Amino acid sequence: MIHSASDADLTLGVIGGMGPLATADFLAKLVQATPVTIEQEHLRVLVDSNPKVPDRNRAIAGTGVSPGPLLAGMAAGLERAGANFLVMACNTAHVFESDIRVAISIPFVSIIDEASDECVRGHAGIRRVGLLATPACTASGLYQRALGRNGLSAVVLNRRDEEVFLGLLHAIKRDGVSRDLRIAMKRLAEALVADGAEMVIAGCTEVPLVLDAADLAVPLLDATSNLARRCVQYARRQSPFPAVARLG
Amino acid sequence: MIHSASDADLTLGVIGGMGPLATADFLAKLVQATPVTIEQEHLRVLVDSNPKVPDRNRAIAGTGVSPGPLLAGMAAGLERAGANFLVMACNTAHVFESDIRVAISIPFVSIIDEASDECVRGHAGIRRVGLLATPACTASGLYQRALGRNGLSAVVLNRRDEEVFLGLLHAIKRDGVSRDLRIAMKRLAEALVADGAEMVIAGCTEVPLVLDAADLAVPLLDATSNLARRCVQYARRQSPFPAVARLG
Repeated sequence: MIHSASDADLTLGVIGGMGPLATADFLAKLVQATPVTIEQEHLRVLVDSNPKVPDRNRAIAGTGVSPGPLLAGMAAGLERAGANFLVMACNTAHVFESDIRVAISIPFVSIIDEASDECVRGHAGIRRVGLLATPACTASGLYQRALGRNGLSAVVLNRRDEEVFLGLLHAIKRDGVSRDLRIAMKRLAEALVADGAEMVIAGCTEVPLVLDAADLAVPLLDATSNLARRCVQYARRQSPFPAVARLG
Repeated sequence: MIHSASDADLTLGVIGGMGPLATADFLAKLVQATPVTIEQEHLRVLVDSNPKVPDRNRAIAGTGVSPGPLLAGMAAGLERAGANFLVMACNTAHVFESDIRVAISIPFVSIIDEASDECVRGHAGIRRVGLLATPACTASGLYQRALGRNGLSAVVLNRRDEEVFLGLLHAIKRDGVSRDLRIAMKRLAEALVADGAEMVIAGCTEVPLVLDAADLAVPLLDATSNLARRCVQYARRQSPFPAVARLG
């Protein structure tokens, strides 16, 4: 078990609250991903869990106000409070990543780029990656571009399943998890596999709340868990921060 | 379902990381305790999850450095970042509550006072309350004084069981939860009941990670869940903040 001296660890800042349960899930996964012998070796994390951020799907669809300025303000606040690098525990909100980056002078680590890189690093030979993501995230092409840069193609939900997905998402955020929601999410993942996906990315932080790797016949990459594992490496300076050039 | 307009909610600040999984547990319980129809009605929460805080049990035993100044600095940072009131997701660290209070000008809500009040409010007729708490928390008399003000007496672990408890705590913080840890914690709770406890307080934020109400023949008050429920009331201005006069 290799880890740096605890006092040398970088402090992580988390732009969260979208939804708040997904942020708690990310924090629990970060703890699980951190090898320690005593509590003090865990990472210091500053979190702004702000569920008041305007709806990302509506903003991207043009029917709601942009969350960009508020997300930028949260990011700047986390930097002021002492964070050394930032992540955001919401895939769809990465549409507003450039608003965040211009507001800060510390690295921002993208959940989407990290998941896309892990598809190559951890799943050699796979070409077609299924996406369980929101309609807005899919329409933005965020994952498709990141996967394309790695020579991978995306398999996305059809229009009807996208609407079903959005319904599940709102149900999780309103009522929490349930067996019915698990069954419905599994069916969406299976539809991606039937359409040719050789693996599936849980590309929305609510998905892993109701879908486990054991539910699927193909590998499932939980973008939240993957981000947590990467954060430990960045905080302990075991991996250099990714270049920003990939934006846009 | 009654709740105030979401923009009028107060922002909660959480002094956390002791341990970090207990803080994630508190955040999840806060989400579950908050009635909402849409995500934006959840509370904004600023969290400083800092596992680097020096060991509370050692400090209180006189064999380690005091975490008071660091806790005070975290509290002041949360206030600067915009928190309107603070809680701390660690019972034992409340020994340093006065260090925190002098560093801030916003209300600090005590997990211990809230649990003690709930013993009266929610469990009429009970006189003897069992405490699952750390040796340092028990030695400090924090819970005993709070319960005493409410006309209740505390049943505490014997010396040998206190050491067992501390061992379980360190195992949870190091390795996470397991079936063996659940069985061992249940045995400690049953020892309190055998000694006359009519209910038991999970008075350490790691305890509810391995002990459920269904495990016991008497009522179990999870101080973490109780604090989460109270925070919703304070944030939505449905309850006035408690007076500070109870300190000391």
